[in-house]
Amino acid sequence: MDLLKKYIVEKGEFVSDNILKVDSFLNHQIDPELMMEIGLEFKRRFADTKIDKVLTIEASGIAVGVMAGYVMHIPVVFAKKKKPSTLSNEIAVKKVFSFTKDMFYEIMVSKEFIVPGEKILIIDDFLAHGNAAIALADIVKECGGEVAGIGIVIEKGFQNGGNLIRESGYRLESLAIVDSIKNKTIKFL
Amino acid sequence: MDLLKKYIVEKGEFVSDNILKVDSFLNHQIDPELMMEIGLEFKRRFADTKIDKVLTIEASGIAVGVMAGYVMHIPVVFAKKKKPSTLSNEIAVKKVFSFTKDMFYEIMVSKEFIVPGEKILIIDDFLAHGNAAIALADIVKECGGEVAGIGIVIEKGFQNGGNLIRESGYRLESLAIVDSIKNKTIKFL
Repeated sequence: MDLLKKYIVEKGEFVSDNILKVDSFLNHQIDPELMMEIGLEFKRRFADTKIDKVLTIEASGIAVGVMAGYVMHIPVVFAKKKKPSTLSNEIAVKKVFSFTKDMFYEIMVSKEFIVPGEKILIIDDFLAHGNAAIALADIVKECGGEVAGIGIVIEKGFQNGGNLIRESGYRLESLAIVDSIKNKTIKFL
Repeated sequence: MDLLKKYIVEKGEFVSDNILKVDSFLNHQIDPELMMEIGLEFKRRFADTKIDKVLTIEASGIAVGVMAGYVMHIPVVFAKKKKPSTLSNEIAVKKVFSFTKDMFYEIMVSKEFIVPGEKILIIDDFLAHGNAAIALADIVKECGGEVAGIGIVIEKGFQNGGNLIRESGYRLESLAIVDSIKNKTIKFL
């Protein structure tokens, strides 16, 4: 997706050889028009697939997920990282290992919002080691749903998540795949 | 906003006399078309005011905030509740007391995304005691910005946040004000 790559090149910050910071349009400040274009691109890429619902994860996945849901006319569910006091019904919970924080955290979805037979498009902002995406896919399956595909805004091609997901048999669509970030220069695949 | 009230009546769950659960369209599952209507309603209500940017707070404010920013053609910033490893620049931090969790938490915004002179519309999903909204307004002022107004999806009129904010001199626009939730029946103001 050329517009997204332009944003990454012009507005991304290359913190180190494996950290790309996109706080100015995706992770802290959000460019809503770019989110809409990303939503439309996911719609185009998954146009041949029946999708009932989008599943994403708080917080940075929500803006992208809600725009994708809007243009596809389907609801959006976001997995929570902390159990709220109001989440009283039966929930699907998975552990995710965070490499950046070097610790496990839990993500959860109330089973009333993904029901058996539903075809779910998983959407997230970043794909690195793939742990969050795999945990979301496991949640879909535990709820009895079916993973229609996984849509990622920025895949770090130099980490293993993309391979892991493709080898697991999931259809993965990444809008920008970063091949390397070296000497503050970015290369796309 | 009649459509929103209809959603609250038909899809809200009245957990107790002061807890309204709207997990099926706002706080866990999101109805993107309703989010768009809410964004448009905020645009109408603040049409007479110059606004440069939307400020909201993760996670449940993001869907509403990004739609409001989209229809107003302005960027959206969301305050974070945890300091990410990439948030290295100067930040504005405020403590917020959570009545539901009976504890303080911190919210923060990188000062590069709210700059002196900017007119900021604060948007959030719920207003109860007003602590989060006041903390967001304090962050705007610490960054040198100006609070153009505060837009709330659901105000709990039986708690004190609305009065607190109006008495502080801020312009508050709440799309639905819940007067009471008694015996599983909701009354709007």
